[in-house]
Amino acid sequence: MTMRSFDDLNAHLREIRRLNDVVALLGWDQQTGMPSGASEDRGAQVGLLSRIIHGMWTDGRVAEALDHLSAQGSTDPVHVATLRNVRRDLARRVRVTADLVERLASAEASAFSAWIAAKPAGDFASFAPSLATLLDLRKEEALAVDADRSPYDTMIDAHDPGVDAANVAAMFGRLRPGLMALLEALKGGTPPAALGMTMPVAEQRAVHQGLLGALGYDLARGRLDASEHPFSTSVGLDDVRITTHLYEEDLLHGLGSTIHEVGHALYEQGLPNHLGDGVARHAGMGMHESQSRFWENTIGRSRAFCRFVAPRFGNPTLTADRLWAAQHRVSAGPIRVSADEVTYNLHILVRFELEAALVGGRLAIADLPGAWNDAYRATLGVHVRNDTEGVLQDVHWAAGAFGYFPSYTLGNLYAASLAVGMARDLPTLWQEVEKGQFDGIREWLHQRVHQVGHAMDAPDIVKAAVGPRDHVQDLLDALSERYKAAYGLA
Amino acid sequence: MTMRSFDDLNAHLREIRRLNDVVALLGWDQQTGMPSGASEDRGAQVGLLSRIIHGMWTDGRVAEALDHLSAQGSTDPVHVATLRNVRRDLARRVRVTADLVERLASAEASAFSAWIAAKPAGDFASFAPSLATLLDLRKEEALAVDADRSPYDTMIDAHDPGVDAANVAAMFGRLRPGLMALLEALKGGTPPAALGMTMPVAEQRAVHQGLLGALGYDLARGRLDASEHPFSTSVGLDDVRITTHLYEEDLLHGLGSTIHEVGHALYEQGLPNHLGDGVARHAGMGMHESQSRFWENTIGRSRAFCRFVAPRFGNPTLTADRLWAAQHRVSAGPIRVSADEVTYNLHILVRFELEAALVGGRLAIADLPGAWNDAYRATLGVHVRNDTEGVLQDVHWAAGAFGYFPSYTLGNLYAASLAVGMARDLPTLWQEVEKGQFDGIREWLHQRVHQVGHAMDAPDIVKAAVGPRDHVQDLLDALSERYKAAYGLA
Repeated sequence: MTMRSFDDLNAHLREIRRLNDVVALLGWDQQTGMPSGASEDRGAQVGLLSRIIHGMWTDGRVAEALDHLSAQGSTDPVHVATLRNVRRDLARRVRVTADLVERLASAEASAFSAWIAAKPAGDFASFAPSLATLLDLRKEEALAVDADRSPYDTMIDAHDPGVDAANVAAMFGRLRPGLMALLEALKGGTPPAALGMTMPVAEQRAVHQGLLGALGYDLARGRLDASEHPFSTSVGLDDVRITTHLYEEDLLHGLGSTIHEVGHALYEQGLPNHLGDGVARHAGMGMHESQSRFWENTIGRSRAFCRFVAPRFGNPTLTADRLWAAQHRVSAGPIRVSADEVTYNLHILVRFELEAALVGGRLAIADLPGAWNDAYRATLGVHVRNDTEGVLQDVHWAAGAFGYFPSYTLGNLYAASLAVGMARDLPTLWQEVEKGQFDGIREWLHQRVHQVGHAMDAPDIVKAAVGPRDHVQDLLDALSERYKAAYGLA
Repeated sequence: MTMRSFDDLNAHLREIRRLNDVVALLGWDQQTGMPSGASEDRGAQVGLLSRIIHGMWTDGRVAEALDHLSAQGSTDPVHVATLRNVRRDLARRVRVTADLVERLASAEASAFSAWIAAKPAGDFASFAPSLATLLDLRKEEALAVDADRSPYDTMIDAHDPGVDAANVAAMFGRLRPGLMALLEALKGGTPPAALGMTMPVAEQRAVHQGLLGALGYDLARGRLDASEHPFSTSVGLDDVRITTHLYEEDLLHGLGSTIHEVGHALYEQGLPNHLGDGVARHAGMGMHESQSRFWENTIGRSRAFCRFVAPRFGNPTLTADRLWAAQHRVSAGPIRVSADEVTYNLHILVRFELEAALVGGRLAIADLPGAWNDAYRATLGVHVRNDTEGVLQDVHWAAGAFGYFPSYTLGNLYAASLAVGMARDLPTLWQEVEKGQFDGIREWLHQRVHQVGHAMDAPDIVKAAVGPRDHVQDLLDALSERYKAAYGLA
């Protein structure tokens, strides 16, 4: 069937989306309770569906539709964005040969296995050869997608369309001194007390379940489950699920995770599905992360939110002040996923600079552990004792996800500027939060971010939402204000 | 790609199976916790996958492979069975036009909706027109599949290959007087006491979870969940899941359900996957039901099993004798799913005779409720007060599943003869059951039923397992022995 209209194209994209949603359900099931023996089945199922999806992209119909529809020269912004996005999708699929796809899949599987074995042993040397192979293939892939662009830019663009390494480097160039100055200033203050409380997981879960509804996460179109690593996943237009991981001895960790995933899910639940799947999609991982970080940090770590949420735990000793203070402890350490809000971006900075150097050929794989440890000492003042808690800690590179790390900091930057714009537009924001009224916030994000989908790239979405802002300054201001106050330096 | 060998054909069948497993997971998810708002998504996902699967059957490759492989004239029994089974699969798919498939899907959706609305209101008249349409289309479909066979035979064959209406009628012809005589005899005895115990669902679940391992259900290749209607489903070669429904006030119901579903799951977990998917499949719903009923009734309602399982509930007042007695209460009522073991087959008999008459054109839809009520009075001595508890009680006809009901009684019949053969082969059977040792039983079924797959049709599998047996007599003997003892008539 030849696709002669945007409706035809969108119907085809919807079918692709349906299959991707099924793949997402297979992944959700795998992480929430699939029998351990079913790994091989699951791999075969995902592989088969991926092949079918690949065929729906590359059988020539989408390319033909793009040519035909482009020739119509529509200036409708939704049409223009659809063509631009689908052209990008297609480039990443048709320009990469089946042979390369297969070599990549095999290299990813090898690197992942090698990493799983190497990490506990801290044995980088055994991981290095497969990492080198995977890196070479990713560069080959990036050049196949766009021969005229630097491979690292193409890798970043895969996760954050409209962003390149120079943008990221410029932001980190100013974030680094700002964050280091803040860390230095905090040394002159008094560190807030840790929470030091335990609560049975079942009781925490009940609190979280109630919180979901208050935050506006629609449980008729989603559900909360437990998994090792919290995540959110869209398995249907009306089915966006989240997971969390609750620890009896760490209330803050679970609370942050749940709010974070709700932020991701509200974005997915709010996409403009009526505009077609060329546009009804997130605008990159940085934009996605801005939604989770906004809820987790701007809202979740506000005094107002602490006043709202603390009583819900039903323990009179858990006061709002105590909760707020405990959320603002800063302590540089070697592990990214345990990092506090201030040092987190420095962890990302280290990864960004190292992977840029790796992809650019300025750093050899063999020199990576040493460079990692040097960077942690220079940037975070942290002594990395071994590769387990150093260069081997994250799965990203072992999974071939070069160019992904910047998304985390982009998310924090976008979130900071969105928060400034929102506070300007919603003068009663914090009074509402304190009363547990989140409708205004959600609606603000819905109109300015969620409903935009990918009609624009992320930087333009933020600009349209809040005007031109200095994201780095907005983030530094927000961190400085909260953390100095928490350290008694206000 | 042309398929030139059995390996090629089996690789194609395995891909079809993988997609069917994915469809099964979508169904499992829908029944175990899918958000209520996701029904439309789920329908679209299943519809799309069904279309892809249909294409893999009908794009000509399977037909070509069958012609090519048949011409080779292999006498290898696995090859012969594969060709026979796949030829049957294909006939049901290619001989039915896409137009008819679409009209059927639409008629099924309408009939199901009409039934959902009509059942609580007891309003058969509002359901009748869509039932009539669906019945006509099913007959049209049956004639398309095999123009030379009576439509009802073709319908039964879809669920139970190798069985026809005459076989079923002959069995029921002898079952009816036998069961009625047993019911008459029991009137002269003393009805056993009901259990009259409650136990929190969480406690029951813990007992059941432990029971699964004892019965040999492999939890590394399966899992137990809760759902409204218990079921088992295969979502991978190594992933066969079961659900149950526990009631605080009815321990027996939940216990029976779990054991029943374990029986189904052991069959699926034991299929001979190495023989290829033309043979590594169940041999019809009657055979499947024989496995669940064998475990539920022959094992689960034995004195030996009661001695094993009663103490596991941790309540000293729940003795083995009390449990066994309570499992043997007979009481004719209007509802099939609540029926006891003896009257159950009479419920099926009524449905069989009525659907045979409907499909054969000897009974008009308008006369169905009256015929139903008359049959219940004549066969079970039950007065049906309204259509809610009468002709509208089951979903089967509303779902277009004519010819399915006989499977339930076929299962009981096969199970009875398998039990006779097993008791002969395993002289220490009941001592083992009492000690909670089920390996011998499982291995016996594994070799004689599970590992056969669909290399033979069900009647031949049972014959090969236990020799020529009179299934009706075996079932009547088993029921008579247990129930007369329970009623003090031994």
